[in-house]
Amino acid sequence: MNQIPSLEDIKAVHERIKPFIHLTPVLSSTSINELAGCEIFFKCENFQKIGAFKARGGMNAVLSLTKEEQKKGITTHSSGNHAQAIALAAKTVGTKAYIVMPNNAPIIKKNGVKALDGEIIECEPTLEARESTVQQVIDRTGATFVHPFNNYDVIAGQATATVELISEVPNLEVIMVPVGGGGLLSGTALATHYLLPNAEVIAGEPEGAADAILSFKSGKIEQAPYIKTIADGLLTNLGDKTLEITRMYVKDIILVNDDEIIDAMRLIWERLKIVIEPSCAVPLAALLKQKERFAGKKVGIILTGGNVDLGKLPF
Amino acid sequence: MNQIPSLEDIKAVHERIKPFIHLTPVLSSTSINELAGCEIFFKCENFQKIGAFKARGGMNAVLSLTKEEQKKGITTHSSGNHAQAIALAAKTVGTKAYIVMPNNAPIIKKNGVKALDGEIIECEPTLEARESTVQQVIDRTGATFVHPFNNYDVIAGQATATVELISEVPNLEVIMVPVGGGGLLSGTALATHYLLPNAEVIAGEPEGAADAILSFKSGKIEQAPYIKTIADGLLTNLGDKTLEITRMYVKDIILVNDDEIIDAMRLIWERLKIVIEPSCAVPLAALLKQKERFAGKKVGIILTGGNVDLGKLPF
Repeated sequence: MNQIPSLEDIKAVHERIKPFIHLTPVLSSTSINELAGCEIFFKCENFQKIGAFKARGGMNAVLSLTKEEQKKGITTHSSGNHAQAIALAAKTVGTKAYIVMPNNAPIIKKNGVKALDGEIIECEPTLEARESTVQQVIDRTGATFVHPFNNYDVIAGQATATVELISEVPNLEVIMVPVGGGGLLSGTALATHYLLPNAEVIAGEPEGAADAILSFKSGKIEQAPYIKTIADGLLTNLGDKTLEITRMYVKDIILVNDDEIIDAMRLIWERLKIVIEPSCAVPLAALLKQKERFAGKKVGIILTGGNVDLGKLPF
Repeated sequence: MNQIPSLEDIKAVHERIKPFIHLTPVLSSTSINELAGCEIFFKCENFQKIGAFKARGGMNAVLSLTKEEQKKGITTHSSGNHAQAIALAAKTVGTKAYIVMPNNAPIIKKNGVKALDGEIIECEPTLEARESTVQQVIDRTGATFVHPFNNYDVIAGQATATVELISEVPNLEVIMVPVGGGGLLSGTALATHYLLPNAEVIAGEPEGAADAILSFKSGKIEQAPYIKTIADGLLTNLGDKTLEITRMYVKDIILVNDDEIIDAMRLIWERLKIVIEPSCAVPLAALLKQKERFAGKKVGIILTGGNVDLGKLPF
């Protein structure tokens, strides 16, 4: 896809990937609603294939390639869930996935890639090292690179989670997601703009990876003042495509600190009885931080993934 | 109810409690099935009200009382989930719950009772202390005692989880639950006997609370050789009613040690992305321990609850 996905694009993508993804459930909790002072509907992408929404975008990007392109394999760089998404998608179409991962990626995510027959190529945990290593893979194999988020096929795939949420829960007034590179946020903003134009899309971002809020305000890609957060899925900067869509259709970005993220994460584990990763808890943390703003509203939150290392829990 | 519940009794109970309980989902995991060599359907009572199947039996027992009896309040002794079940049921009919709890009960379970306006009366963690403290409550208030498991109304309530599982998943060949006092096991055995008479009911029991297997063999209430297990919901002995039903309709009881329980618990958390308490993992541990016995079969497992103290996880 070479331009911002239209509603028709997103609907076509949804039909394309439906046979290969789960229709995830929407859960809610009376006690969380009481605590928050609003009505929250959690779209549980932690139950998605590979344990994260990224199965959607990765699947679409790979299914959208020509047979010839698919044959040469797929490559990407990712700290985690996108890696598994590409490995799954490659396996689904019967080709090879070359996954460049930072050498500090969580073991659970590396194991997930291996279990899907993906080949892991480790690199230093910097964007530069990731990109040059991917280039080496492309030079060697002719594989197609699927960017984790700055890619319209990926964005359109992520948008389908919001399409399902809006179709299951009528009259949402706010939809919230976390923001890392902005793929999910862009997809969510587009789907909401098309299907529920009066609803607000609001992102949560960790204080310790606060680049998106700066870019959102300035209109150019900014760096985070510092990187230190438990939300390890949200460390990347926006790309030009996700920045543009975010600036067009996102209402606001709310910053939260790690204590707030951990409290929200624990609340979801205890009350919803589900396993989510820290990045997932960022939107609820943002909502609870600015409760008055959401008072009495009907809010959808996309819980992005559940691939947490149980040996390293923050509580 | 004064005799072993009939199918009609169980159906009537199901209609009675339906408005007050959740119809819980059934989940499965391709990777767990591959590992186990059979097809497993997990009935997720961790998503039940109060986070455990005990909401069913407690609700039925309280709804079955006369208005006059309800008015004087309800009392019980419980190390946890039954306590919350009675507190919820009492609150539902607008009366008082007096909950006798051992002083070493998990904080999360005490907080659950308090959140439901139950009055906690602490005692030493022995059956004798529990029973004498309950008697004091009855003498003082006239409250009705609802036994956690050795009670046909409770057993019939617990049976409804299996009724739902059998109606959602056709042709199960084995149904597995953990055994503590035997309320769930008895209800499961009855519902299976009535609705799916060719299926086997098999219980899992911790080696560190292995009383039920001895009672099951000898036909009288036996004590566990020793009590030491992470499965804190399974410490109690069978009662005369649950022993009788277990001897009539249960095929077998399989012992598992704590390492096996913790491995199964972690597997469920990692693959199903749900929060379950250790007691819950006992049937899967039993199945994995005797894999060949279940090879290729269609197995239902009732996941009993999710009220685990996140600050004290075994991994």
